Amino acid sequence: MHFTSEQRLDDGVLERTFSLGEIPGILWTPEAASASAPVPLILLGHPTLGLHKMYPRLVGRARQAAADGFAAATIELPGSGDRPRWPVLEQARADLRRVMQAGEPVGDEIVDALVLPLVEKAVPEWQAALDALLSLPEIGGPVGYAGGVISIGTRLAVVEPRISAAVLFAGSLVPRVMFEEAREVTIPLHVLLQWDDERNDRQAALDLFDAFGSTEKTLHANLGGHTGVPQSAGDAGAQFFKRHLR
Amino acid sequence: MHFTSEQRLDDGVLERTFSLGEIPGILWTPEAASASAPVPLILLGHPTLGLHKMYPRLVGRARQAAADGFAAATIELPGSGDRPRWPVLEQARADLRRVMQAGEPVGDEIVDALVLPLVEKAVPEWQAALDALLSLPEIGGPVGYAGGVISIGTRLAVVEPRISAAVLFAGSLVPRVMFEEAREVTIPLHVLLQWDDERNDRQAALDLFDAFGSTEKTLHANLGGHTGVPQSAGDAGAQFFKRHLR
Repeated sequence: MHFTSEQRLDDGVLERTFSLGEIPGILWTPEAASASAPVPLILLGHPTLGLHKMYPRLVGRARQAAADGFAAATIELPGSGDRPRWPVLEQARADLRRVMQAGEPVGDEIVDALVLPLVEKAVPEWQAALDALLSLPEIGGPVGYAGGVISIGTRLAVVEPRISAAVLFAGSLVPRVMFEEAREVTIPLHVLLQWDDERNDRQAALDLFDAFGSTEKTLHANLGGHTGVPQSAGDAGAQFFKRHLR
Repeated sequence: MHFTSEQRLDDGVLERTFSLGEIPGILWTPEAASASAPVPLILLGHPTLGLHKMYPRLVGRARQAAADGFAAATIELPGSGDRPRWPVLEQARADLRRVMQAGEPVGDEIVDALVLPLVEKAVPEWQAALDALLSLPEIGGPVGYAGGVISIGTRLAVVEPRISAAVLFAGSLVPRVMFEEAREVTIPLHVLLQWDDERNDRQAALDLFDAFGSTEKTLHANLGGHTGVPQSAGDAGAQFFKRHLR
């Protein structure tokens, strides 16, 4: 990992862009973070829209994390943003578009083709980023994961023991195999569901919440569409991390 | 309304019991409440277990309300606690017990017989209590309703314009007619659902949440049974009132 730029935001948060091999990323640390006072870390998940497009929302969540005493970091997903096109993902997206425009139901094979390769490729990248981030003297533990893609968050919660709590956004299509995998999740979970999410299947989100094996899990459903998450929902997620990452 | 006892709790909260005709009730006011600084009011709903049995949970919620600057009040439901037995309610409860012990499904007529007479009788009593409470110089507005029975809270939200926000506990059987009535609710709602509530029908609770006409509504589902509402869920309800009753 090497840092490629650095700026201090108006609230004192240090924002640094970095490269991890071919993967770009951003790290935000609160002003007070130092080698003698290392801070917990929240990994900021997001959909495959690219970091540039997601930046306004991500920096908002990072500022909240910093205000609560946490570092936050994110990386570009495979095939997104400035990373090389990924034909597997392009093809799956084209298939999904075609089916949706034809008004046909989105079948399991479409969902699997869209999400499973992404999970397979992105999860080891998140783990590599975690290795690099935790080697920085100003970053300690524990570690949380916040955001979508919910299947990536679910897989990470299963395979990555350094992640000790997660806020998951139920805002993407979920392959059937993830419902089985969800049973293996045991960390505390806080799941956000937009009740009228036009891109999502509400019943699938409720079924996935039901499937999670965690003994501590909370579902917060708010009225509104995909991008209409209210401020209060973000506040509740922040409260959840304050309880679990300190 | 006349006060029948008065004590100051250790956190300065003034607890007064009162009678409103034949109906006993309790009012809690924060230490700072006065005629020159009247406070908003939260009506504390509860199931038909009687105020004595519910007191520990109610006083906990009242202390939280007082810490946030709100008065809180509750009244005994018809046929409960020290109020005269109510044959209609006794019969409906006996019918429900018989059906459940026989392992039979709880039919609509059982649910209607148990809940609808209670709603019909309790809602005007809550409104009479509200008249009396709002006539006290130390109580101002706005007014919130918090708790079960969810059908009582729903009816109150429809017919009582002085109630401007509600935290509803989805922990009781819901007559079909209430799903229609729910569409008429327009105030901000915060609904608590215990995901594994053994006395409740999860799907009915989700359907009722979906039916509410409010443009601002949030569902918080937590893992656990009927009485296992976690502290964090109570905190989120308190945050909701802080946003809507100030």
